[in-house]
Formats: sequence, structure tokens, C-alpha cells
Amino acid sequence: MKKRIELASDMGESFGNYTLGQPEEVMKIVNSVYVACGYHAGDPLVMHQTVKWCKQYGVVLGAHPGFPDLMGFGRRYMKITLEEARDYVIYQIGALKNFAEEMGVKIVTAKPHGAFYSYAIENEEQAKAVLDGLKTIGSDFAVALPALPVSPLHELLKESGIRLIGEIYPGLSYKKDGGIIVTRKYEADPEKESRIVMKYLKTGKVDTIEGTEVEINAESVLLHGDIPNAPEVILTIRKTLEAEGVEIRAAIES
Amino acid sequence: MKKRIELASDMGESFGNYTLGQPEEVMKIVNSVYVACGYHAGDPLVMHQTVKWCKQYGVVLGAHPGFPDLMGFGRRYMKITLEEARDYVIYQIGALKNFAEEMGVKIVTAKPHGAFYSYAIENEEQAKAVLDGLKTIGSDFAVALPALPVSPLHELLKESGIRLIGEIYPGLSYKKDGGIIVTRKYEADPEKESRIVMKYLKTGKVDTIEGTEVEINAESVLLHGDIPNAPEVILTIRKTLEAEGVEIRAAIES
Amino acid sequence: MKKRIELASDMGESFGNYTLGQPEEVMKIVNSVYVACGYHAGDPLVMHQTVKWCKQYGVVLGAHPGFPDLMGFGRRYMKITLEEARDYVIYQIGALKNFAEEMGVKIVTAKPHGAFYSYAIENEEQAKAVLDGLKTIGSDFAVALPALPVSPLHELLKESGIRLIGEIYPGLSYKKDGGIIVTRKYEADPEKESRIVMKYLKTGKVDTIEGTEVEINAESVLLHGDIPNAPEVILTIRKTLEAEGVEIRAAIES
Amino acid sequence: MKKRIELASDMGESFGNYTLGQPEEVMKIVNSVYVACGYHAGDPLVMHQTVKWCKQYGVVLGAHPGFPDLMGFGRRYMKITLEEARDYVIYQIGALKNFAEEMGVKIVTAKPHGAFYSYAIENEEQAKAVLDGLKTIGSDFAVALPALPVSPLHELLKESGIRLIGEIYPGLSYKKDGGIIVTRKYEADPEKESRIVMKYLKTGKVDTIEGTEVEINAESVLLHGDIPNAPEVILTIRKTLEAEGVEIRAAIES
Repeated sequence: MKKRIELASDMGESFGNYTLGQPEEVMKIVNSVYVACGYHAGDPLVMHQTVKWCKQYGVVLGAHPGFPDLMGFGRRYMKITLEEARDYVIYQIGALKNFAEEMGVKIVTAKPHGAFYSYAIENEEQAKAVLDGLKTIGSDFAVALPALPVSPLHELLKESGIRLIGEIYPGLSYKKDGGIIVTRKYEADPEKESRIVMKYLKTGKVDTIEGTEVEINAESVLLHGDIPNAPEVILTIRKTLEAEGVEIRAAIES
Repeated sequence: MKKRIELASDMGESFGNYTLGQPEEVMKIVNSVYVACGYHAGDPLVMHQTVKWCKQYGVVLGAHPGFPDLMGFGRRYMKITLEEARDYVIYQIGALKNFAEEMGVKIVTAKPHGAFYSYAIENEEQAKAVLDGLKTIGSDFAVALPALPVSPLHELLKESGIRLIGEIYPGLSYKKDGGIIVTRKYEADPEKESRIVMKYLKTGKVDTIEGTEVEINAESVLLHGDIPNAPEVILTIRKTLEAEGVEIRAAIES
Repeated sequence: MKKRIELASDMGESFGNYTLGQPEEVMKIVNSVYVACGYHAGDPLVMHQTVKWCKQYGVVLGAHPGFPDLMGFGRRYMKITLEEARDYVIYQIGALKNFAEEMGVKIVTAKPHGAFYSYAIENEEQAKAVLDGLKTIGSDFAVALPALPVSPLHELLKESGIRLIGEIYPGLSYKKDGGIIVTRKYEADPEKESRIVMKYLKTGKVDTIEGTEVEINAESVLLHGDIPNAPEVILTIRKTLEAEGVEIRAAIES
Repeated sequence: MKKRIELASDMGESFGNYTLGQPEEVMKIVNSVYVACGYHAGDPLVMHQTVKWCKQYGVVLGAHPGFPDLMGFGRRYMKITLEEARDYVIYQIGALKNFAEEMGVKIVTAKPHGAFYSYAIENEEQAKAVLDGLKTIGSDFAVALPALPVSPLHELLKESGIRLIGEIYPGLSYKKDGGIIVTRKYEADPEKESRIVMKYLKTGKVDTIEGTEVEINAESVLLHGDIPNAPEVILTIRKTLEAEGVEIRAAIES
């Protein structure tokens, strides 16, 4: 049985007058966050504040570049060119890195957000364009992705020697190929999610909607940080796992 | 008589499908540029291309952060907070720096754009907020500003030991206090502009609309890079100055 | 004693993935709303939904055009030109009107939002530019404004024969000239707000921070619709007023 | 032989400080324009000015709603929902209609712009969503589309009894199914384009890249209005056609 896991959450998705969830409360109880960079969500004040919380609460800082589509929260596929994909990532990484450096924090991980992730796994060229952008983080960073199914982006990471952090999504449904079904509506059931994570830790497997099980390789539990009661939900999961003797700790420490 | 001067231009102000002027042609004949960072103008592709030209043509790279107002090209005063001012600059500087670092180019100079400049000279607090943002460029950079009138930003630069590059604007009119009158319409007269620069080089003075002269301290001639015939205009000025034995060279070399 | 008053709220301020407050619950208990039109807040889906609720719950539809500044929620003063002011209003009014007409609803009232209101009362020219834009609503509409102090916009409405709906703000503080002090932070105290409205209904006056009273002429109580518990707060105020025999009813019916 | 044809152009695609081509000069020589509505291009000032020119030069006003993607000029496919498609069109139509009504001009035609057109012809549901939005123009309008190939949108127009204006694109290449090949780069050859139009008028056919001919049914010649020398190009085509006795006249008069 695996005895250690990371709790992670998307973060920094507020914008101007709009606050998503209770971000600071979530920051206090997760190990690692993926921070929006002003394209699909987030703005300079929010990024500044989020990096500050990373420092204050010892949370690992990850970059979460997205499509330039605030109105659609980056969730709508956009057929951008390879140059656009690469440069949109460079732009967003740079902005986040500057806040991080100014506060003496390091970007440790990254992943493309929402429909930009779909774009990045679609074919090798697009995977390369996105990864080329992510490489401006520096010589040493990890990319968080669903462990399955293996995509051109997964293969490219392997070839490049970039560490992949497999994610498990206890709030989503799995298909038999290990792929997840993303839904807009999401109801958090901390007991159910804790069971799913515990089963994974014990067996290395998750249940699928087809009634089968699929083996995945995850080091990080991605939890919804934007629902109104996210802090309570995450804290419940955290306590349940700890009661089972699981160590809650960042997959990679900065 | 001063025997050396820099030719500079605002740059990277195209956006998406919109190209402003003939940017590459201008890049070939100026020494230094101030590059828009995606808020008042510019986008990631334009920034990438502009930094590439800086490298290719040996042009000094300056950052030109602006207000988040693409529709108004950053020329409309916005009453933003000090935190917003600082963080908008950090965001934009970071984005540009990431393109620069990725290509092995250094940001050497900076100045706030348009109405953000008006904001930055308005009082000490606002000057400090903007300068705090600019300081994320690194330990060594210069700020280009009108030499006169002396503003809280000028004083803050002095106190901080940050080098000020005084600019002369041969295309604009001067008031007797050394302040310039910014106009939207601009007609380029290369002969007239050359005469103004030559007079300045010989006497250290420019004529004012009141009929007097005012002494300024400029190392850089700022020329309009966005008018359709900018390359011809700038080239004419350049040749006129060279014919008079003036060395055309960057104020600070990277 | 006045025996009738309107309860009103700003509305339609959600955007994309961001929902502000509990809009539908507020729609059920107010008489009149001012709907954001996609510049400072709101988007086409939100506008569509809000107009639909107006129809469903019999709420008077008002237009709430704002500055093109989503990042600042239209609360930051922008020095736009008169043409921009007029055309930004025409654009936003048109968009809202099209949703309204498509559903058989009429725009009955309007007011400029946030810092655009500050712009509109600053001088006669600006007042005229904004009002010229509002006039595209049609031949018959009312403008909601703080009853005091009398501004160039108030005077222009009078000259134009456009009805003014005076607003009372029980959640804000008043100065002795009848002007309000707008604050970002807002704590709703339904008892206190009910008392303020009742005092106004009985005496025609509100207390000021200077310790004096000032007479105002209001037909509408503007309540914060974007705070998390807005529905409870508004409902409490509504019930308190009704218990005192006050008729809660729209100032102008469509 | 057909003795009458319309010259049309996309229009109102400038934005803020960015002017695309020489719009007023084009307005003087075409019969009909499709005006951007602030999503993929255009802004309130540009829309106002363009409608004014329509009135001044007697040009038929068409609406050209696009994707909310200024950075990509609406040319990148976005997987928006049906509700978004419909409401984005309603919003943009409303904005344009308000400028038109304010100046006593009528919107006579419409078509979705760029990638929004691709979206609209993809399937019946999407066609319906876009058309539902366009119907807010009023009871009587025409939709301009490539005559071929027949798409779900074409069929829906037929069923709805909405008049279709077939367009011919002398600056683009045709495939044997009558479909056009859209290219980003475009070189205008007025003689060649005049020949293509004349051939069409005489034979009802255009050449294809496969070496065959295809019969199309066009009433309108769509010309590029955004290239720098568009006015000269269009004027040359216009004169060539007139010299051949072709009447240049709007397909539908307002």
C-alpha cells in the first residue's frame, strides 16, 4: 500500500471583483496549487496574493496557463496555431515567474488548463508547442497530468526527461482506458472521495463507469478548490486519509 | 557640442491582425526600443517577434508597460490603486522578460506608457508603486523619461540610484517649463526634426511654444515608430545627423 | 408619511464562470433592477438570463452601462472622450435592448454604473454625452440617481423632461450635502437599514456623518444584490417595511 | 449573361488605435458592407462611424457578428455552446442595431464572421443557434453566404424563407464542390479578379483548382476591404465591370 499522497488544487482563479470559492482557506490545507496566469482566469493582484500565500503556507507553486478566453474560463477548445500556443504559455509563465521571483518563491510544477490541456494532448506538434512554452520555467520542473491515457504529451515528457506527476481525480468519473470524464457540475462528497483515494492507495486502481477497474499511477489528488464549501470538503478528505495513516505531503518539494 | 545621441522608438504595438506601421523596418535603424507588453498594445506573438528583432538587429530592449486598456491604447487616465499599478507592471515585465530570457536578450531600459506615465509622475506614492514594479527587471536597468519637468518619479529614480535617460521629442512642442505637449495627430517633418535635434546637440536647448528656449538634458531622441512612413522619416533624420558628424548609438548598451 | 417605496438592486453582474451573489433569489424580492451590459460586468448569457427573470418575476428592467473595465468592475475613473462616452452607452444599451425586445420586455429605467456615474455628473458636456447615449432606449424612460447633490446631469434631465428616480442608499453613509460615501467593503445590517428607510419615509430625511440630517427626495431603495446573503437581507428589510404598512412597489411600472 | 452585380466588403474592422485599410475610401465604391460588432473586431466608435458612412454614401448595412476573440480576429474555431452562439449574436446585433436606429439606417443583411461562419455551417443545431440570433435583426433580412457547398445553414434559411445572397470571391480559389479555400495572405490582382467576375457573369461558372468549372449562384462580389490598396483595387474592378456594361448595384436595397 502507498503511504503517501499529495493534495492539490487549481488556484488563483479569482478575477477583479470576482472571488472564486474561499481561496485562502484552501491554501491552508493543500500541498500544491496550480495558479491561473491572467488568460482564462486570474489577474495580477490575484497572482500576487496567491504566490504570497504559497510562501506563507508552504504550498508548492505550479503554473496553470490557459487559453485567452476569460468569458469561457478557458474551457472552450480554440484552434490556435503552434506559435500562438507556445507564446501564450511563455507570456503567462513569465508573468507568474516574475511574481514568484519577486517573493523568493520557485515555480516547481505546471500543467495546461482546461481546453488548453485538450489541445496539448491532441497531437505531437501541439504537445511540443505547449511544452516548449513550459520549458521557460527553468531547467527543473515537473508536469502534472492525468496518468492515463498516454498521449503525445506524456511521451514527449518522457523523452525530455521531465518528471510527470500523475493525478487522481476522486470527484470525476473514470473510463476503462483510464481517461476522465470532465463535467461542469460537481457535487463534493468527501466520504466517497476519501474512499476512492484509499482504494487507489491500497490497490493502485480506480473504478470505471463501465464497471471495471483501471490501474493508474498517481502521486497527487486533485481536488476542486472553487466550490463554495471546498475548505470543509478538502479538510474532511485530509483528515480521513491521515486517520488511515497516510502521509499528506507534496509530491515534489521546492 | 554633444557628438553622440541615441535614436529610440516605441515598438511592439501591433496586436493580433493589426499591424502598426512597418515595425521591422524601424527596428533596422533605431538603437533602442520600448516594447508593449500586452496590456495597452502588443500580444505574445508580437512580443516574441520584437525581441527576436532586438537580437537580430542589435537593438536595446526596453519594457513599456501600460494600462489594461487596449480599446484606448493605454492613453486614457485610469484611477487604479497603488497595488494595481505595481502588480500590473510586475505582470507585464515578467511576460516580456520571459521572451527575452528565452532568446538570451536582456531588458536594459523601461518606461511607463502613455497615461500610465502620467499616473507615475502624479505623486510620490504612485511613482513608487510603478518603480517597485519596474525593479523586477533586475538589479540594473535605466528608466527613460522626459528630462523635464522634474517629477516625484524623477526624484525617486535619483534616490534609488537608478539611471535616468532623458528623452528629446523633436516631433512634439515644448512648454517653457520643459514639459511636452502630447498630441494625437502627428505629422513627421524629418528636416525640421533634424534641425531641432542638431540645435539641441549644439546648444543643449529646445525652442518652446512661448518663444523662449529651455535647457534639457537628453541622451535619446524618441521618434514616432507607428506612422506609416516612419522608416523613411527616421532614416532621413539619421542620415542628416550622421552627415553632421553625430554618432548614432544607444545610450546604454546591453 | 410616504406609504410607498421601491426596492431595487444592481443585477446581471455575473460573468462567464463567475457568479456574483444569488441573483435569482434577489430577483424574486425586488421591484426593479439595473442590468450590467457586458462592459464592466455581465455577458450575453447573463443578460439573457436576467431579462428572462425580469419577465418571469415581473421586475422592472433598467440598463446599467459601465466603463470598459472588467478587471476593475467599472469602478475606476477613466478619462474617456465625449464620443467614447456616448458610443459606449449606445453600444451597451443596444445589446441589452435586443435581449429585451426578443423576450417582449421593455427597458424602463437606466443609470450609468460606478465610475461612469462619476464621469456623468462631472460636467455638463459629459452629462450630455452619457444622456445622449441613454436616449437610444427610446422616447420614454427614467434615470435613477442619488437625489443629491444636484449635478449637471440632474439639471440636464430636468431640461430634457426625463423623469428622475431619486435613490436612497440605507447601506451607505451620507454627507451633509446629501452626497453618499461609496465604500468597497459593505456589511449588511437589515435592522439598521430598515430603520433608515422608515425614518426617511416618515420624515423625508436621512442622518449624515456630520451628525446633521438632510432632506432627500427618493422613490427607490437601492440594496446591495451582490453580497452572499443579499436575499436574506433584502427579504428582512422588505418584511420590516411591509409590517409598517409600507407598500413595496416599483416607482415606474412597465 | 447576368448584367448586374453587387460589390461588397467586410467593414468596420478597425479597433481603437488600429485602423485596418482605408475604410472610408472603400465605403465610397462598394454597394454593401458587413460591419464587425465589437467581438472579433470593431468598437463603438468604429461602428458609429461606419453606420454614418453607410448613410452618407448610400451603402447597404449588413451585420457581421464574430467570435469573442479579438486577439485572433475571430478566425480561430471556438467550441462554444448553442446558447453562447445564439446570445453572442443577439448581443452584437443589438449593439449594431442601436447605432443604426439612432441614425435612421436599417440592417438589411448579415453573415457570421470567419470561424463563426465555420461553426454555423457545421451542423443543424449550430446553424439554428446562429440564425436564431440573426433573427433579432427583424422580420426582414437576407443572409450572405458562399453559394456552395450547401450546408445545414443554407437549408435552414430556405425553410425559414430567409433570402440567401450568394457571394462570389474572385480573390480566393475554388474547389470542385464550389467550396472556397480561405488563405491568410492575399494578393490583389484587379485584372484577374475582374476576369473571374466577368466569366461568372457570362457563364455562371468559376474555375476550380482541380482544373474543372463549377456553377455557382452569386449576386454579390465580396472584395477584400482591409488590404492597404483596397480602394484602388476595388475601383479598378468596378470600372472594368462597368466598361463591360455591368450594372454595379446592391443585391437588396434598404
